[in-house]
Amino acid sequence: MKSNLTPLGPKADKDTVRRSNLSLVLRAVRDEGEGEATRAGVAARVGLTRAAVSSLVEQLLETGFLTESGKTFSGQAGRPGTALKTARTGPAGLGVEVNIDYVSVCVVDLAGTGRVRLTEHLDNRGTPPAEVLARAAGIAARTLDSAREQELYPVGVALALPGLVSGGAVRQAPNLGWNQVPAEELFAAALTAEHPGHQELPVRSENEANLAALAELWFGGLERIRSFLYLTGEIGVGGALVIDGELLRGAHGFAGEIGHVVVDPDGPQCRCGSRGCLEQYAGQAALLRAAGVDGGGGLGVAELEKRVRAGDARAVGAVAEAGRMLGRVLSGAVNLLDPDAVVLGGIYRNLMPWLAAPADEELTGRVVSGLWAPGGGRLRASSVAGDAARGAAALVMTDVLADPVAYARPATV
Amino acid sequence: MKSNLTPLGPKADKDTVRRSNLSLVLRAVRDEGEGEATRAGVAARVGLTRAAVSSLVEQLLETGFLTESGKTFSGQAGRPGTALKTARTGPAGLGVEVNIDYVSVCVVDLAGTGRVRLTEHLDNRGTPPAEVLARAAGIAARTLDSAREQELYPVGVALALPGLVSGGAVRQAPNLGWNQVPAEELFAAALTAEHPGHQELPVRSENEANLAALAELWFGGLERIRSFLYLTGEIGVGGALVIDGELLRGAHGFAGEIGHVVVDPDGPQCRCGSRGCLEQYAGQAALLRAAGVDGGGGLGVAELEKRVRAGDARAVGAVAEAGRMLGRVLSGAVNLLDPDAVVLGGIYRNLMPWLAAPADEELTGRVVSGLWAPGGGRLRASSVAGDAARGAAALVMTDVLADPVAYARPATV
Repeated sequence: MKSNLTPLGPKADKDTVRRSNLSLVLRAVRDEGEGEATRAGVAARVGLTRAAVSSLVEQLLETGFLTESGKTFSGQAGRPGTALKTARTGPAGLGVEVNIDYVSVCVVDLAGTGRVRLTEHLDNRGTPPAEVLARAAGIAARTLDSAREQELYPVGVALALPGLVSGGAVRQAPNLGWNQVPAEELFAAALTAEHPGHQELPVRSENEANLAALAELWFGGLERIRSFLYLTGEIGVGGALVIDGELLRGAHGFAGEIGHVVVDPDGPQCRCGSRGCLEQYAGQAALLRAAGVDGGGGLGVAELEKRVRAGDARAVGAVAEAGRMLGRVLSGAVNLLDPDAVVLGGIYRNLMPWLAAPADEELTGRVVSGLWAPGGGRLRASSVAGDAARGAAALVMTDVLADPVAYARPATV
Repeated sequence: MKSNLTPLGPKADKDTVRRSNLSLVLRAVRDEGEGEATRAGVAARVGLTRAAVSSLVEQLLETGFLTESGKTFSGQAGRPGTALKTARTGPAGLGVEVNIDYVSVCVVDLAGTGRVRLTEHLDNRGTPPAEVLARAAGIAARTLDSAREQELYPVGVALALPGLVSGGAVRQAPNLGWNQVPAEELFAAALTAEHPGHQELPVRSENEANLAALAELWFGGLERIRSFLYLTGEIGVGGALVIDGELLRGAHGFAGEIGHVVVDPDGPQCRCGSRGCLEQYAGQAALLRAAGVDGGGGLGVAELEKRVRAGDARAVGAVAEAGRMLGRVLSGAVNLLDPDAVVLGGIYRNLMPWLAAPADEELTGRVVSGLWAPGGGRLRASSVAGDAARGAAALVMTDVLADPVAYARPATV
């Protein structure tokens, strides 16, 4: 999670400046990751004096956001410094991904490291939304128990949901069959019921592909890639756009819906109400059907991967055709956005060896700049690190990193 | 041209702070437009003291960036203030649009107001690029003569070009038949040849749809619309994306190429090398052909408009079909970007009464959020104010507005 380290403007008052500088220093240490953060290094990075940084570091050590250990030589003249790290205990973020056929819950610490993970595979279709969210709250409650054993205290929850999410509700999630579901409210009530007597955690919600894209941005090792289109193949085809390191949410929070870009205006009816959407050609169900694999869900995908690896002609052909359809729609998106890269996640990740070439071929022929070359590195598989639950948990932590003072005492959960 | 009025950070030195504050004040006065800017009003707006603003205003008056006139009552107690305006003389921007069948040159003043305009309709296809640019330089030179008569002194030139533009060159402009044309260099040399002995003007270049979109943003009266997709129907179909008030240029400067989003993968060959691009269905040539109008260019478009107005069935049908194709491609773009609005310019502007309904119908059926309603105001015609030459000229002025001190003496041209 890289972040912009810019001092405040001149009009801020003293307390605000100090709180902001505590955040600057904490994020500077966090950004070092496995590297060695020292007071001198942090001072150089954030543009404050060594004395100011020392005072800020003391406060962060006292309030439990930082720990220090050992001596490190900075390579410059002078006293050796001690190495600073973000604390492995204290405030934490809880991310809860509710998807079509699984629920996955993740707890991350200040560094964004995943510390607890609990995933249950179950079919959420045909179950009333309140029941699905109550089940997810149960899984979250068990995760919280594990977190507390590690002295991690989640300060908030972010829900990752497969649909159009705004104002705390799922406006529409065609593959779950959800319409106007007040997901935050239902989840919060269920979590309180699971954990009576504990402080309520603030709950927010976001589209799952958006959160997976943020996780990719923060933890995916993308290096200089700051603008990318992210596609995740699930039962639906989710999408998200990151531009200059920021998620593009759109005017109503509904950007990124590449699964519903039309491939053939007279094609098969889509659950969204339109016809011939990309999802009908490259979504999991279409892919399994074309490959002749019976049974959906994780088992179906595992079977598809097995057959493709074994060279089964029908399976390989189905994946190649999905790749062509992806490439066709992606070429339009690339002409529109000219991103650094297109990142394919979900079921596409493991299918890349069979998917990438036909997709690349369409892209090469149709990207007008002539700057798309097969195997040129602009089409890439997502990292394993970039999943929606971790992105959700890390999103919660952005609040803590932005103003650690507000979270200085561990919340009791 | 609204702009962000934010004071500098604490690390800037005194001279830098004063230069930045001069820019703040100048832009605050400019943003008032036809309103009454007073020292007190500016002080309130930019968050500086009245005394500081007075000193900055004095300097801007002395150096000719502002003028003041009359007395104005602010409605508050105290002395009446004098009304401040940006000067109508002094530094100016020169915008030169070189399109397929015309060249249009515009000079704007500090307020962004178009003060001189010279347009020549001519067919630039089949003429060597150097010759086209020399002709454009000749038109620009005549415009400069008119500008100087009004005591306007252009400080730079921006070229608006119909193709992929980066690094000062047109990488590809399929409809002009240009490939790797060093446009800035050729234009600068030709302008110097036209105006020997005068100071050379810095030349920059940008895609014409990008500049038209900026003009729409700055001068189009879009009010709260900050994110939009802009399409301009010309011989090609140009496009641009504005997100949160900023042009999205993309990783290589090639974003916005909606004209080359594929409609039918096996459709007609496009000049870009791909097949079935939107341009082949909704571009000017395709539209005139489908409508049965002979002859291209401005005359053909005028004839098409005449026939559509007269209710000619073939012409009306052709425009409706183009609208459907636009709507189909736009639905994908809206699903991807969720913009506040889609703005249609160029030949589409006058055709909106016949184009909008079929486009809206496709959009309504295919935008997954369900937030696209026919006639809901998200599909709109561009303003007359938003053209590429004015956008180009105004782009030059952003430098002057950002640091007026650097332009305090009129350049001699």
